[in-house]
Amino acid sequence: MENQSGSKTAGKAIRCRAAVCRNPGEALIIEEIEVEPPKAWEIRIKILCTSLCHSDITFWKISTGPFAVFPRIFGHEAVGVVESVGAHVEEVEEGDRVVPVFHPNCRECGDCKSQKGNECSIFGYKVETKMPRDATSRFKGMNGEDMHHFFYVSSFTQYTVVDVANVVKISNQIPVDKACLLSCGISTGIGAAWKVADIEQGSTVAIFGLGAVGLAVAEGARLRGASKIIGVDLNEEKFEIGRKFGVTDFINPTACVEKKVSEVIMGITDGGADYSFECIGLASLMEDAFHCTRQGWGKTVILGVEKHATPLPLNTYFLLRGRSVSGCFFGGLKPKSDIPMLAHKYLNKELNLDGFITHQLSLQDINKAFHLMLQGKCIRCIIWMD
Amino acid sequence: MENQSGSKTAGKAIRCRAAVCRNPGEALIIEEIEVEPPKAWEIRIKILCTSLCHSDITFWKISTGPFAVFPRIFGHEAVGVVESVGAHVEEVEEGDRVVPVFHPNCRECGDCKSQKGNECSIFGYKVETKMPRDATSRFKGMNGEDMHHFFYVSSFTQYTVVDVANVVKISNQIPVDKACLLSCGISTGIGAAWKVADIEQGSTVAIFGLGAVGLAVAEGARLRGASKIIGVDLNEEKFEIGRKFGVTDFINPTACVEKKVSEVIMGITDGGADYSFECIGLASLMEDAFHCTRQGWGKTVILGVEKHATPLPLNTYFLLRGRSVSGCFFGGLKPKSDIPMLAHKYLNKELNLDGFITHQLSLQDINKAFHLMLQGKCIRCIIWMD
Ligand SMILES: NC(=O)c1ccc[n+]([C@@H]2O[C@H](COP(=O)([O-])OP(=O)(O)OC[C@H]3O[C@@H](n4cnc5c(N)ncnc54)[C@H](O)[C@@H]3O)[C@@H](O)[C@H]2O)c1
Ligand SMILES: NC(=O)c1ccc[n+]([C@@H]2O[C@H](COP(=O)([O-])OP(=O)(O)OC[C@H]3O[C@@H](n4cnc5c(N)ncnc54)[C@H](O)[C@@H]3O)[C@@H](O)[C@H]2O)c1
Ligand SMILES: [Zn+2]
Ligand SMILES: [Zn+2]
Ligand SMILES: [Zn+2]
Ligand SMILES: [Zn+2]
Repeated sequence: MENQSGSKTAGKAIRCRAAVCRNPGEALIIEEIEVEPPKAWEIRIKILCTSLCHSDITFWKISTGPFAVFPRIFGHEAVGVVESVGAHVEEVEEGDRVVPVFHPNCRECGDCKSQKGNECSIFGYKVETKMPRDATSRFKGMNGEDMHHFFYVSSFTQYTVVDVANVVKISNQIPVDKACLLSCGISTGIGAAWKVADIEQGSTVAIFGLGAVGLAVAEGARLRGASKIIGVDLNEEKFEIGRKFGVTDFINPTACVEKKVSEVIMGITDGGADYSFECIGLASLMEDAFHCTRQGWGKTVILGVEKHATPLPLNTYFLLRGRSVSGCFFGGLKPKSDIPMLAHKYLNKELNLDGFITHQLSLQDINKAFHLMLQGKCIRCIIWMD
Repeated sequence: MENQSGSKTAGKAIRCRAAVCRNPGEALIIEEIEVEPPKAWEIRIKILCTSLCHSDITFWKISTGPFAVFPRIFGHEAVGVVESVGAHVEEVEEGDRVVPVFHPNCRECGDCKSQKGNECSIFGYKVETKMPRDATSRFKGMNGEDMHHFFYVSSFTQYTVVDVANVVKISNQIPVDKACLLSCGISTGIGAAWKVADIEQGSTVAIFGLGAVGLAVAEGARLRGASKIIGVDLNEEKFEIGRKFGVTDFINPTACVEKKVSEVIMGITDGGADYSFECIGLASLMEDAFHCTRQGWGKTVILGVEKHATPLPLNTYFLLRGRSVSGCFFGGLKPKSDIPMLAHKYLNKELNLDGFITHQLSLQDINKAFHLMLQGKCIRCIIWMD
């Protein structure tokens, strides 16, 4: 028996409801599935709530290549309670409040132990549609077929199984819906502002895309005392909410007819922003973000996951003038140490998390969350499991 | 009278010999030219010696566009003595040993005063073929025609006129040929290793191109205690000299048939180099340099000036795994403070400069220096003016 836990369901498959994607880009179907017990170094989690991040949408739409595998259970921003743990799991136990995280952090490899970077060198992104250690699935459909995982999390289900490298214990004091936000988008944006860009007081910042990720960058920049935070978005409804996160100036690209967005930004900053962030996922906008930074030290941080795998073309002469471009997953944060740090800041009232939640739905209405995000109506929509 | 100086020639045009480029890619012609007196904020310099940098070759070959203007006087790596100064010049006086530098450093603008970056915000690269303040020329051919400047220096002449923003006073103690090296390539390579990459002890480093710039990166990496310094060059003759600058491993791309160069580097480092440098000027090699860095913190520094203005295509998924790409002119160094710092290190025997000089010629043989560099025979060829 691999199971170390005393829960009633421990060691047995659990039947529960999940929102299953059977075909790319099609509405999810609420189905009964079976969730197998956790194997060694794995944890079975009862999901309390989950939210939709644009990365779910990007991969849900992909219809060719190695990622186009179905049936599949999407979702990677969530919070839950440990139902049972597999052998060798000592970090958490039954009943612990945990946040699953797509970005692994094994704590044992040289990279996880180092102070630099946040990429785990043992768990990469090789088998993102299966469990990372043995490349098998823990989900079975009612016909006995294996279902694919997503990003090592799969949270659009009442129960999921996650590797211990993808789980972070979090304080019970933080409300579950706020804890959920720290699982992906908000941590990504704040980490990018604090750790990757390391924005200083008085800096000018341009943010392409004012979804949850971009607004979290703004929140991070605001807390660092940025003097100007420019938000670029096609959707002007984002401007009002942007103000709450410190955005001072707004640009709608469709209103830029005589000048490019980057030229407008050059004009309203001292020859370009000190920092720019791409939080949409289009190479053309990454290029714009690069072109709006100032010479000498302009730094562009790429957070968006390119929707079509298009490369980002850099003008090398422009680069030579002291500019740089960085990319990061999870905002350059190490999940196991930095999520508790952010939770602590929230509890200390140093960090605004409440403002990101614009909608709440139950699992059966999950397709509405997709529509809301596709129409740009929501920042984060919390999806409750019960 | 703008002139403040007491030299015999001060205030008058000086007739002297220069190596003039009349057509792109053609041999330079030694001609008599007239060098006008310096205007306000300008300095006329008697060049003692100059050397050829690959940037001269790149621009000498360009036959279309705004840079293809002739007749033109190339050369930007040099050392000389102040012959006379124009009004308002207080930094140097007649007889001072100076290094002209293509990269401006006015010391007055916010950027020059800041600790970050090394781009001057007053003097950019707008009129690189004329004087920076009034966009006129100080060189006349024997038929009275204006001749174009190059990179604000033009050192393939016995006398030149340079803006005070492009001049650095240097100690008389340092031999002139070594001082000449600090004017461009060597400072660029060392600065990139120390200031832009900020290489730490024990790091692994990959250098694409073992010319003077690449070897100076190696010297900088060696002095920082890099554990592995991998040199990539088509010319195996560079491997022997590379060893003297600390290069530990060599890769000839033509010998890589089954694996890409970046894969070979991934194999001999712990999954990729901590730092990579492109010191050749081809986008395809910049891409290789990017692909040979490790996840988590791999940093690529672009020094090469792209020969065909081809953009560098970045795979954004690879970038998201914690990598970054930076570019810099003059190695991110501020010429007025950092050239004296490097000179000091040379005098203290902390820096190897002697090894970069492989050839010496006189002005009349300057075309031989072009051949030597094109054939990959020289690192730096010192061209003496008398
Ligand atoms: N690097 C990471 O670790 C990480 C983590 C989470 C999300 N992401 C990525 O970050 C991006 C943003 O995620 P999100 O959840 O905030 O998405 P979102 O859909 O909530 O926000 C995207 C915003 O971009 C705007 N937008 C779309 N196209 C635009 C255009 N052409 N010009 C201007 N604005 C445009 C939309 O109106 C919207 O406000 C996605 O690419 C997602 O995959 C990356
Ligand atoms: N950024 C700056 O401030 C700055 C300053 C000086 C020089 N540069 C640039 O740095 C680059 C190097 O200058 P340098 O004077 O050292 O030049 P160099 O000609 O002395 O050295 C270039 C080296 O690259 C090698 N090489 C050429 N093509 C290659 C290929 N396809 N694969 C592998 N190796 C190849 C050559 O054999 C040679 O050893 C040039 O692009 C120059 O314009 C930039
Ligand atoms: Zn996400
Ligand atoms: Zn790890
Ligand atoms: Zn040069
Ligand atoms: Zn300046």
